[in-house]
Amino acid sequence: MKKFINDDFLLNNKYSRDLYHGFVEKLPLIDFHCHLDVKEICEDARWDNIAQVWLGGDHYKWRLMRSNGADEKYCTGEAPDRDKFQKFAEAMPYMLGNPMYHWSHLELARFFGIDDKLLNGDTAGEIWDRANEVLRSGDFSARACMIKSGVEAVCTTDDPVSDLSWHKKLSEEAFPVKVLPSFRPDKAFAIDKYETYIKYLEELENASGIEIRCYDDLLCALKRRHDFFHSMGCRVSDYGMDTVWFKNAFYYEVEDTFKKAISSSELIAPDEVAAFKSALLLECAAMDSEKGWVRQMHIGALRNVNVPMYEKLGPDAGFDTMGESNCAESIASHLNSLAASCTLGKTVIYNNNPKDNDMLAAMIGAFQDSECAGKIQLGAPWWFLDSLSGMRRHYEALSSNGLFGRFVGMVTDSRSFLSYARHEYFRRALCSTIGSEMEAGRIPQDIELAGSLVRGVSYFNAKGYFNF
Amino acid sequence: MKKFINDDFLLNNKYSRDLYHGFVEKLPLIDFHCHLDVKEICEDARWDNIAQVWLGGDHYKWRLMRSNGADEKYCTGEAPDRDKFQKFAEAMPYMLGNPMYHWSHLELARFFGIDDKLLNGDTAGEIWDRANEVLRSGDFSARACMIKSGVEAVCTTDDPVSDLSWHKKLSEEAFPVKVLPSFRPDKAFAIDKYETYIKYLEELENASGIEIRCYDDLLCALKRRHDFFHSMGCRVSDYGMDTVWFKNAFYYEVEDTFKKAISSSELIAPDEVAAFKSALLLECAAMDSEKGWVRQMHIGALRNVNVPMYEKLGPDAGFDTMGESNCAESIASHLNSLAASCTLGKTVIYNNNPKDNDMLAAMIGAFQDSECAGKIQLGAPWWFLDSLSGMRRHYEALSSNGLFGRFVGMVTDSRSFLSYARHEYFRRALCSTIGSEMEAGRIPQDIELAGSLVRGVSYFNAKGYFNF
Amino acid sequence: MKKFINDDFLLNNKYSRDLYHGFVEKLPLIDFHCHLDVKEICEDARWDNIAQVWLGGDHYKWRLMRSNGADEKYCTGEAPDRDKFQKFAEAMPYMLGNPMYHWSHLELARFFGIDDKLLNGDTAGEIWDRANEVLRSGDFSARACMIKSGVEAVCTTDDPVSDLSWHKKLSEEAFPVKVLPSFRPDKAFAIDKYETYIKYLEELENASGIEIRCYDDLLCALKRRHDFFHSMGCRVSDYGMDTVWFKNAFYYEVEDTFKKAISSSELIAPDEVAAFKSALLLECAAMDSEKGWVRQMHIGALRNVNVPMYEKLGPDAGFDTMGESNCAESIASHLNSLAASCTLGKTVIYNNNPKDNDMLAAMIGAFQDSECAGKIQLGAPWWFLDSLSGMRRHYEALSSNGLFGRFVGMVTDSRSFLSYARHEYFRRALCSTIGSEMEAGRIPQDIELAGSLVRGVSYFNAKGYFNF
Repeated sequence: MKKFINDDFLLNNKYSRDLYHGFVEKLPLIDFHCHLDVKEICEDARWDNIAQVWLGGDHYKWRLMRSNGADEKYCTGEAPDRDKFQKFAEAMPYMLGNPMYHWSHLELARFFGIDDKLLNGDTAGEIWDRANEVLRSGDFSARACMIKSGVEAVCTTDDPVSDLSWHKKLSEEAFPVKVLPSFRPDKAFAIDKYETYIKYLEELENASGIEIRCYDDLLCALKRRHDFFHSMGCRVSDYGMDTVWFKNAFYYEVEDTFKKAISSSELIAPDEVAAFKSALLLECAAMDSEKGWVRQMHIGALRNVNVPMYEKLGPDAGFDTMGESNCAESIASHLNSLAASCTLGKTVIYNNNPKDNDMLAAMIGAFQDSECAGKIQLGAPWWFLDSLSGMRRHYEALSSNGLFGRFVGMVTDSRSFLSYARHEYFRRALCSTIGSEMEAGRIPQDIELAGSLVRGVSYFNAKGYFNF
Repeated sequence: MKKFINDDFLLNNKYSRDLYHGFVEKLPLIDFHCHLDVKEICEDARWDNIAQVWLGGDHYKWRLMRSNGADEKYCTGEAPDRDKFQKFAEAMPYMLGNPMYHWSHLELARFFGIDDKLLNGDTAGEIWDRANEVLRSGDFSARACMIKSGVEAVCTTDDPVSDLSWHKKLSEEAFPVKVLPSFRPDKAFAIDKYETYIKYLEELENASGIEIRCYDDLLCALKRRHDFFHSMGCRVSDYGMDTVWFKNAFYYEVEDTFKKAISSSELIAPDEVAAFKSALLLECAAMDSEKGWVRQMHIGALRNVNVPMYEKLGPDAGFDTMGESNCAESIASHLNSLAASCTLGKTVIYNNNPKDNDMLAAMIGAFQDSECAGKIQLGAPWWFLDSLSGMRRHYEALSSNGLFGRFVGMVTDSRSFLSYARHEYFRRALCSTIGSEMEAGRIPQDIELAGSLVRGVSYFNAKGYFNF
Repeated sequence: MKKFINDDFLLNNKYSRDLYHGFVEKLPLIDFHCHLDVKEICEDARWDNIAQVWLGGDHYKWRLMRSNGADEKYCTGEAPDRDKFQKFAEAMPYMLGNPMYHWSHLELARFFGIDDKLLNGDTAGEIWDRANEVLRSGDFSARACMIKSGVEAVCTTDDPVSDLSWHKKLSEEAFPVKVLPSFRPDKAFAIDKYETYIKYLEELENASGIEIRCYDDLLCALKRRHDFFHSMGCRVSDYGMDTVWFKNAFYYEVEDTFKKAISSSELIAPDEVAAFKSALLLECAAMDSEKGWVRQMHIGALRNVNVPMYEKLGPDAGFDTMGESNCAESIASHLNSLAASCTLGKTVIYNNNPKDNDMLAAMIGAFQDSECAGKIQLGAPWWFLDSLSGMRRHYEALSSNGLFGRFVGMVTDSRSFLSYARHEYFRRALCSTIGSEMEAGRIPQDIELAGSLVRGVSYFNAKGYFNF
């Protein structure tokens, strides 16, 4: 039996193999959206065992373990690490077809040199021992993972109130990977959550040195932090949203809503909330555009739907899901509003429900202009879509309606230092897709032409677009 | 020319063939959702000709005949059986790609031994004769079909008012197939149809022995029938719904709505209807959970859209369609409400619009727990999705977001004793999909590993999950 | 390296090749929905260079050029034709996977005899020269393109106020292609745009000779134009709509709304607009049905979303997009309303968002009757769906839920005389799909059976359905 993770994993014809091995395998990578903890990079984190590096904080794995009937103690609880690893391993054979099955084996192969066994309940013991030996070898650390993976630059995800001190510290060292922040002001939008909002505004006041008594103060405070982030090398913003808010309102109405929000715990009407978020989003987009930043929008997650578990474990524990944002009209209005005020800068839209792939691939085509090639992007398949079928459908939607050849490519969106294997996964899937298209005669059998496309999508498009 | 229905029908590579013939072909089958008439099993129904067994009651076939321009008399009308069969046969060549083309030829091959001809207008005469000869042979009956198909257990679909007398009678016989009821209280929800609702409540009063004067009486009556069904071996409930109703309301509001509904034909506001159905659904779910039943929800059909034909022919005559339930938020709220009250038991969600496959596959992942592996299920592709493309998309959605290896598999959802061929169809499609994934290197080329998966999905997962 | 556009372009197995070359390659074509300018046919238009015939008016190309960062002057602006062509050529390598890449090379091969080069920035000069030489050769004209493409009949798209004088003129000539009008009364529906509506009614008064003072007058005027179009050979209507309007209203309410609309610029409430459009759509459908016309509905485009560019360039310049019509219930109600009043004639529904493919494929199945086979059609994949993946998904949706064998096939929906290459593209894709299904054993390996299907879908179904 051939090794599962072999040189030609996912590469099913000669074109795919030539594209991958000849054009993209050795390219560096730019991970322009992730959730790494910069402190861990600074301190060059190490781990005692594979459960720590794999199961600590990975809600993708927890969901699959729960789906296999594992008790919560093996996921987020107090069970011994070895037992947690065992439960995860036991779920593996039921994951056939899930990207986790691929990611896990890719990570075992690339970071632990284990490619001769499939992980399951029976092999868990041996793999536990072998992996931990590697972890203890001294060559395995946060920084080593990044360097080994050929990472050229990463963008972390940071709140405007962050002092970015770890970024600063790291930038003063000789570490060859660029680690840049992203400006993610989600908490400044959460006007509908009174207590946390008031608390957040205090943090923002402290960080910005601006007392926030009205909407305009809020904008000034955010602007000051935006300037600070820019001075720290930030060139990317990010917005998480259930849907794209768009609701026309007069400026004074938004001001009134904000005043009401900060002066009492009085409930604000849904329409007022939407108008506020809509207006603030446009203001933030203008700041981004003014500085030439790339703006990212992550649309459509439905978070914390399992409330009892959310109350027990907090956010990001695996109790989120895919929403239905039905935002065709509002996203069109939002983008149009920016276009009309000449504040529509480079934008990457990440979608979380595949029913909207085609709608969004068409949408971006109506707002492109000559600022740069591929100015408005349909971002890489995100979260619940980060799978082979998600990638294939993203390719189909984007290539059918726009220029796939201008796509800026993959991000890990991850908290883990091992997730760079997902770039390899993406590149293999990409070469597999393009190679199949060539074999079928739908793309010319011209390896230089296709090679240029896959090199662009794997690395060069992002390099030119972000220009870090 | 190779026979169309040959040993390797749908099995396109060695892995597919090895999986099917080596692992699943001979497994018994559990058909946990169907619409068989138990009386027909008791009486061991026989048929005079193939039109009776094929065209009587099969609205799938009627729709395709109408699509081919056949007059209604050949579908539900008074045309001679031979002529009806002719019209169906004439539509067959236009059905290429439709599952009906496969089902029909599979049924001809498996039940009538006819696999050397394709059905069309020219061959209809010969096939009519040969099929009818088999029907008259004496070995062909309702029970014979079930035994020949390897059926281990079926769950029929029954209203709470049913006395299940045919189930009782059958259980006293030596018939080796378990024939169990399902509790389907749809009529108890239909508060928005005054006249039929009042009539139904009378039936429910008679069946339960409880006078229904208030909402609490309704719950008691349903509970009593639920207990009775349990005593008759029922372990499964089923709910048909246009969308998943979720609307918060106080108990007294639901009580008021119910009182209004039964005391006058006054129109009840849509919000009141939704709140009533939402509340009743939660109550029924709690009953199911308390007894450890599996709860099934069939979501999203839009019924009787062609009103003139509905008025002429009644329900289930082929004038239903696929709806747009857009229920991401309400199903999240519904499941959360049950999770919060510890009444979320085993649940199978059947979806009727493929745009929602991924949303639901992600949704169930947020509500799994350690009660059992695969506790919340995305049910087999249902009705308009029961096709090869429907199965492929179900596989893609579920495997990408959850554990396909825990899927409880196929149901016929049928009124026909010949529909067991759909289990063969599903198993072949399953082995084809998994075999192709193996060939492409996306699933390890380990036949025991993949074999274990297809055996689970074909039979063993359902056996463990339902535990009849 | 094999030529990209070779005899077997898209035909990947023996069945595909046999189907295409043996059954459909030489069939004539019926293009029952296009936007040709009949004046250009009458005058037998010629072009000075390939930029004129390719880039003048083709908003598909402009969008892709903008996506590649081309300045507007190269799209709709004043740049020299040679420069425009250069910019388009430079975008080509990024279009791999886009139908434009296929269409362009097919058109170069079929109309210009250029099939030995791929178009890109480097080859643009040579191709420019060679193509222009062909254009100047004298054998290249509007009529020559149609005749060379085997066009039997086309239906243009015409406003009811049109005098169809060019159609008349052309019909008096010996030109062998039938050029028929379509009745497209979209402007009569636009009651929500006061100024243009009033202006349009004046035109309609002039054309019909009926003074329009009330809703009934509007219907009479439209009816008179409908009669006139019929007398001119028109047998097809067409309706462009963001969604399928359905809202019950009394006749006097619709009358009141219309009166209000024409007597003042007072804003009409959205509900009134919907009720008006809903009612008028039913009236027009009745006219179509009475005359035995085929009614086409183009559903779900979201137009002119980029307002600054719309204001600069007007409509149809590439600033439209795919909408979310979410019309399952309203289209069911609309079709039901027609069925109930016996005015549901032949109908082709074109969908613009692929999430709705399956919903619509199921929907039409509930409204078929014996007037003819395939009476209610799911139209060819339209606009943003006109791609290989769009065609594959259309096939999957329609074949899974209905009779693909009764599908009336492809339309160009184009303003260009070169777009007939899209029929070849469609036929090749069709034979590729059916051939693959045969190879996989999902369709019988009976070349006559499959050949009959592809011949029907390519030509004969449309011929019988429209019966021009």
